[in-house]
Amino acid sequence: MADLTGKDLICTQEWSVKELLKVLELAEDMKKKRFDKKYTRMLLNKTFFMFFYNPSVRTRQSFECAATELGGHAQFLEPKSMRLKTAKSAGETVEDAAKVMSRYAAGLGIRILEDKVSHYGEGDDLLREYAKWSDIPIISMAHDKFHPCQGLADVMGLRKHLGKNLKGRKLLQVWGHGALARSWCSVQESLLICSRFGMDVTVAYPEGYDLDPAVIAQVKENCNDNKAKFEITHDVRAGYKGADVVYSRNWMTPHAYDKGELDKQGEIDRALKFTDWICDAAKMRLTNNALFTHPMPIDRGHEVTDDVASGPRSIIYDVAENRLHVQKAIMALTMEKL
Amino acid sequence: MADLTGKDLICTQEWSVKELLKVLELAEDMKKKRFDKKYTRMLLNKTFFMFFYNPSVRTRQSFECAATELGGHAQFLEPKSMRLKTAKSAGETVEDAAKVMSRYAAGLGIRILEDKVSHYGEGDDLLREYAKWSDIPIISMAHDKFHPCQGLADVMGLRKHLGKNLKGRKLLQVWGHGALARSWCSVQESLLICSRFGMDVTVAYPEGYDLDPAVIAQVKENCNDNKAKFEITHDVRAGYKGADVVYSRNWMTPHAYDKGELDKQGEIDRALKFTDWICDAAKMRLTNNALFTHPMPIDRGHEVTDDVASGPRSIIYDVAENRLHVQKAIMALTMEKL
Amino acid sequence: MADLTGKDLICTQEWSVKELLKVLELAEDMKKKRFDKKYTRMLLNKTFFMFFYNPSVRTRQSFECAATELGGHAQFLEPKSMRLKTAKSAGETVEDAAKVMSRYAAGLGIRILEDKVSHYGEGDDLLREYAKWSDIPIISMAHDKFHPCQGLADVMGLRKHLGKNLKGRKLLQVWGHGALARSWCSVQESLLICSRFGMDVTVAYPEGYDLDPAVIAQVKENCNDNKAKFEITHDVRAGYKGADVVYSRNWMTPHAYDKGELDKQGEIDRALKFTDWICDAAKMRLTNNALFTHPMPIDRGHEVTDDVASGPRSIIYDVAENRLHVQKAIMALTMEKL
Repeated sequence: MADLTGKDLICTQEWSVKELLKVLELAEDMKKKRFDKKYTRMLLNKTFFMFFYNPSVRTRQSFECAATELGGHAQFLEPKSMRLKTAKSAGETVEDAAKVMSRYAAGLGIRILEDKVSHYGEGDDLLREYAKWSDIPIISMAHDKFHPCQGLADVMGLRKHLGKNLKGRKLLQVWGHGALARSWCSVQESLLICSRFGMDVTVAYPEGYDLDPAVIAQVKENCNDNKAKFEITHDVRAGYKGADVVYSRNWMTPHAYDKGELDKQGEIDRALKFTDWICDAAKMRLTNNALFTHPMPIDRGHEVTDDVASGPRSIIYDVAENRLHVQKAIMALTMEKL
Repeated sequence: MADLTGKDLICTQEWSVKELLKVLELAEDMKKKRFDKKYTRMLLNKTFFMFFYNPSVRTRQSFECAATELGGHAQFLEPKSMRLKTAKSAGETVEDAAKVMSRYAAGLGIRILEDKVSHYGEGDDLLREYAKWSDIPIISMAHDKFHPCQGLADVMGLRKHLGKNLKGRKLLQVWGHGALARSWCSVQESLLICSRFGMDVTVAYPEGYDLDPAVIAQVKENCNDNKAKFEITHDVRAGYKGADVVYSRNWMTPHAYDKGELDKQGEIDRALKFTDWICDAAKMRLTNNALFTHPMPIDRGHEVTDDVASGPRSIIYDVAENRLHVQKAIMALTMEKL
Repeated sequence: MADLTGKDLICTQEWSVKELLKVLELAEDMKKKRFDKKYTRMLLNKTFFMFFYNPSVRTRQSFECAATELGGHAQFLEPKSMRLKTAKSAGETVEDAAKVMSRYAAGLGIRILEDKVSHYGEGDDLLREYAKWSDIPIISMAHDKFHPCQGLADVMGLRKHLGKNLKGRKLLQVWGHGALARSWCSVQESLLICSRFGMDVTVAYPEGYDLDPAVIAQVKENCNDNKAKFEITHDVRAGYKGADVVYSRNWMTPHAYDKGELDKQGEIDRALKFTDWICDAAKMRLTNNALFTHPMPIDRGHEVTDDVASGPRSIIYDVAENRLHVQKAIMALTMEKL
C-alpha cells in the first residue's frame, strides 16, 4: 500500500484514487470500531494544530473530536493572535512559523475562506506556502478553492447509501439561492472527487454563476477518463432528471471580488432574486429517487426545503458524521510517525 | 440503581432525590480517589462540548478539568462563531446543530446567562430546544433559571460540614447588595435542592426583589413534603436567627427586562442603595454558628465582608472544589456509554 | 537531588544553578526519548491552566504541546473573560481566583507583557500576587521583567552547540532596530542565566536603551561570582569581536511608560531610526564564528538579516524547539504530585 506519511492534503485531485480509497476504507472501519484500541492510540500524546482564519461549526468540532479519539490533542489557534507578518505590519514569516510548528506538532490544519482573502486563490496560495516550509503534513480544513475532507465525507456517504461502485450514478450539483455568499470550495471538491469515482456529473446554475474554469476543465477530464457524462445546464429543472444524488448549495459569482474584497451584500442581494433555485419535493420527484446531500450548515428555505432536508432520502447527518471518520483516517495515515 | 445514561440535567428538581444521591455519593468517592484508575477512563477518548454563550471562570475551568480527569476532552465553543440561525440572520437551526453534535460527542453543556437573553426564561427554553433534538445528554452549565451543578456542589459541601442528614437544618438564603446584576439561577437552584433534602428555608431580601413565583411555589411544596419550614422575610437581620447555613448573594429584580433587554446599570444603581444588606460578623453572631457559603465569584465588600468570607466557618473553597467532583460524577453517570 | 515539587518559576535567578541543571538535564533526556512511556504519564489526567493576558505564538503552542506530551491537558484561558476585579469594576480577587484554581489544577502559567501593564514591573507584581495565594506552582510564560522558560531554552541550545561547559564563552546581547516595541523579558533573562552559567557578557545598545538597573547589577554580580567579564558598549560593532554567541533583539527604552501607558508608536518611531543596528554577515565576520540566536518571532530585516537568521550558524529553530522540552521538564518537576 502507498505510504501516506507526511503527505499534504490540499485537494483530493492531488491524491491517487488508490490513496483516496485507502482513506475511505480506513474511515469505514473506524466508524464500525470507533473506540477500538487499535485506533485510540494512533496519535497518542501528539498534537495537531488547527489554524482558523475563519470560524467554523462542524470543522472545529470534528477535527478536535478526531484528535481526541485517536488519543491526541488538537490545538485551536486563531492566526489573528499570532503576530504573523502581513503587508501592513511587522511580524513572523510563514517560513519561521512553519519551521517551528514542525518541531512541535504532528500536523497542521488550515481553514481560510472567502471573506478572509482579497481574491479567489489567495487562501490556496497560503496553504501551499505553509506546505513549502513545513516538515509536517498540511491539511486543508476548507479554503477558498477546495475542501478535501468534505469531498471524502461526501463519497463515504454515497458509498454507504448507493453501494461502493459509483460508476454510472448521476450527481446533480445544483446552485441554491439564499442569504449567504458561499465559497466554491465544497462544490468544487465534490465535482472533482465524484468525477474521479466515475459518476456522471451535471452542474446546474443560473447564468453568471460559473465556477473556476480550471476546476471545470479538470472535472471534464476526470469524466472523460472514466467515460462518464459531464454537462452544464442553466435550466433549474433539467438536471434533476435521472439524478441519483442531488447536492444543492449556494455559491458566489466569479465577480465577488471585483471591488478588491468580497462584496458579500452584493452577492446576497443578487442570489436572493433567483427564488426558483431551491431544491424541493416537486423537483426531487423528477429524479431517480435521488439522495439529498449538503455539507451543512444548511440555509433551509433557500437552498432546500425542510421536507427534503429532513426527509427519508436526506443523508446530511450521515455525511456530517463522516467528517469525523475521514479526518481520523487522514490524520492517522499522514501523521502517525512524528 | 437508576440508570442515568442519556439523561439531561437542566434543573435538579427534574431528577429524583435518589438520583441526586447517586451523583453525590459518586462525587464524594471521586473526591477521595481522585486519580484512581476506575475513574480516569470513564470518558476515555470521548468529547464533551461546552457552549459558552457567556464567559465563565469556575465553570469553564471545572468542566474542562472534569473531562480531563475522566480521560476525555471538553471542547470550549463559543456559539457566536457558529453561524447559528437567529431572528436577524440566516444560519443553522438548533435541530441541525444538535443532530450533528450528537454524532460527535458524548454530551453537551450549555451556559447562557442574564445578559445574553431578552427575557427571563429564554435561556431555559434554548436548553430545552437542544434537549429536544439531541441524542446526547444536555447539561446546564448555568442558565437564566437554574444551575444544577452548583446546587449539587452546595449540598455536597453541606453534607461534609453538617453531616449527611440535612433535615431540620436551617438555610438562610439572603440577598446581598452590590455592583453586579446577578442571575437568579444559583439562588433558585439552592432553594430547590436544599428543600428537597429536608432543610428549613428562609429567603430574605428587600421588597421588590421577588424571585420566580413558580420556583418559590415549588420550594414551598418541597418543604411541605418534608414537613420543613419555609418563610420569606424583608428584615435584613431576622432570618439569621438560628440559621445553620448563610448563603448571601446578589440577584436582580423581576423588572430587570422591562425595557426589552437587561437593564444592567439600572439594576446595579438600585442594588447599591441597600447598603445594610451585607453579610457581616455582627449578623453571623445571630446564627447557630452558621456556615457561610457562596457560589463564587464573590463581590467582597458588598455581598459579604472579608472577615466572614475568609473566616473559619466559610466553606466557599470547598464548595467551589465540589463543582469538579459533582460534574465528574454527572458526566460519568449520564455519558458513560456513547 | 533537590525536590522542586511546588516551586514557582518567575525568574531563573531565584533557582539555584543545581536546580536549573536538573531541568536542563531532564529536558535533554526528554528530547532524546520524547514519547518514551516514562515521560508520557507524568501529568496524566492533570490540568495546567494557562492565563494569556497577551496572545502568543510559540508560548501557547509549546506549553499546550508540553502538557499533551506529558499525558495531561493545558487549558487556554483569557483573563479578560474571567470577571476578575480591577480598579474599575467589581469582580473576583486574586486571592479567591488562586485558591479555587489550586483545587482544580496542577499548575498555573501566566503571560503578561509590556502592552498589558501601565508601568514596568506591574506584570511581575501580578505573578507574585498569584504565587502568594496559590498552593500550586506559578510559572511565568513571559512577563514584563523575565522569561525563565526562554532563558532555559537558550542555554539548552548553547549547551548543544558549544558543549556543556559555557565558562569563558562570550555572549553578545545586542539591541536590534525595528518596527516593534519589545519587552525586556527575554533579554534580561538571557543575561541573568548566561551569567549564572559562567559566560562572559557584553551588552550593546544605542545610548538611551538602558535595561533595568537592578537586573544589570545582578548580572554583574553573577559575572563576578564566576570571574567572568561583563561590559556595556554603545558601539554597534565593538561587541562582536570574539563573540561565541550573538543574540540580537529589539527592546524598548526606559521611558516607554512615561505617558502612563506604553507609547508603542513613539518607541517604534524612535527605534526605526537606528538603521545600523542590525545583525548582518559583515558584523558576524568579526566574531569567533559565533552562533546566532533569537527567541522568535524574529523581525527579519530589522533585528537581523535573512542570511544570518537562516544561515548555518543560526540555532533559532533548535532553541524554539527547546521551549517544548524545558517546559515539559519544568512541569514534570514542579507539578508531578497533585
